[in-house]
Amino acid sequence: MMMDLLFPYPAHERLGKQLAFIMETDKLKTILRQSYISDGTRRENDAEHTWGLTLMAITLAEHANMPELDLLRVLKMLIVHDLVEIDAGDTFAYDTAGHADKVERETAAAKRLFGMLPEDQSEAFFALWREFEDRQTPEARFAAAVDRLHPMLLNYQTGGKAWKTHQVHAGMVRERNRSIADGSVALFQYALELIRQAVADGRLLDEPQPGGE
Amino acid sequence: MMMDLLFPYPAHERLGKQLAFIMETDKLKTILRQSYISDGTRRENDAEHTWGLTLMAITLAEHANMPELDLLRVLKMLIVHDLVEIDAGDTFAYDTAGHADKVERETAAAKRLFGMLPEDQSEAFFALWREFEDRQTPEARFAAAVDRLHPMLLNYQTGGKAWKTHQVHAGMVRERNRSIADGSVALFQYALELIRQAVADGRLLDEPQPGGE
Repeated sequence: MMMDLLFPYPAHERLGKQLAFIMETDKLKTILRQSYISDGTRRENDAEHTWGLTLMAITLAEHANMPELDLLRVLKMLIVHDLVEIDAGDTFAYDTAGHADKVERETAAAKRLFGMLPEDQSEAFFALWREFEDRQTPEARFAAAVDRLHPMLLNYQTGGKAWKTHQVHAGMVRERNRSIADGSVALFQYALELIRQAVADGRLLDEPQPGGE
Repeated sequence: MMMDLLFPYPAHERLGKQLAFIMETDKLKTILRQSYISDGTRRENDAEHTWGLTLMAITLAEHANMPELDLLRVLKMLIVHDLVEIDAGDTFAYDTAGHADKVERETAAAKRLFGMLPEDQSEAFFALWREFEDRQTPEARFAAAVDRLHPMLLNYQTGGKAWKTHQVHAGMVRERNRSIADGSVALFQYALELIRQAVADGRLLDEPQPGGE
């Protein structure tokens, strides 16, 4: 396989760095998630997942808690939010062990990847990623809300495929996705409906029965 | 495979339509392009391609001919620009027969898909798609420029894989990508460099020799 980087573009050092970053981050297409695409035929990758989130964001922005959302910043955050997984891998939502050192692994990844860019841009992209992770601004909270809702839709649509593989129960899904309400109460209400319905039609396990009684 | 749509959400007719649109357009992940992803292992699909374009747009916006670009509109156009291929399929850049009825096929697709949305949004998304196709605004021209440049980068990086499969020559690539200059002269100059270099290292065929002399 051809592994040499693009030739440097002599007259434009900035453009050379930017294009090297673009080619390096193309690897996002090879990072697999636990969710299946809507026809259930294969797991989705981080790049197509990210596109799905950007489409959700522009379609569902009216449901954000904050009416005057800076949608451009939401989109920028979403576009870069999973790049760190190129180095750090995808950590499954319900994998507690994997979450222990997630912050360190992802911070190192952010430094390496965004560090390929010209310095001003490197800082700007790093800040976008931190903003998304910190969930403090209305934009970050709405971006995080669609990031949580999207896999639930795919899970529902594929008959609960990833939920069943990982023996995820309704209580875990409710707990994990509670933060959707921070970005959009309307989407959170829908998520609760979706969970109820998924349990009702056997796509999602109800709470485990304690002691098997 | 579970094919039933998401249950309607009674209190929110708009949200129900929007989510049905989101699930239907998830099919973009199954539309394959001729380009290979950067490691050359498989062809890329339209969804991950679109994500790549949005990353290019936010990274390279400074190189647009128009300095005060409305980047939000660029991103919105890119996010929806290939949805029509869910019904109409991907038409390879150098497939002249396929281009003959492309407009009709894609217009019908746009009407069906965007028609799933609430009316105001359906019109807005259709307008974004038309704006992209018409290439008249600076935003559409810049969006189109990254859409043209991206497969060239992937082709270069994979040793000219898709170019070789389809016996594409340098003259065809130059002709096809001339419009990059309408969105960004800087990116067009880079594209010309890339073509020269690709010919020089045997990734791209030079013009065919007339009469084989």
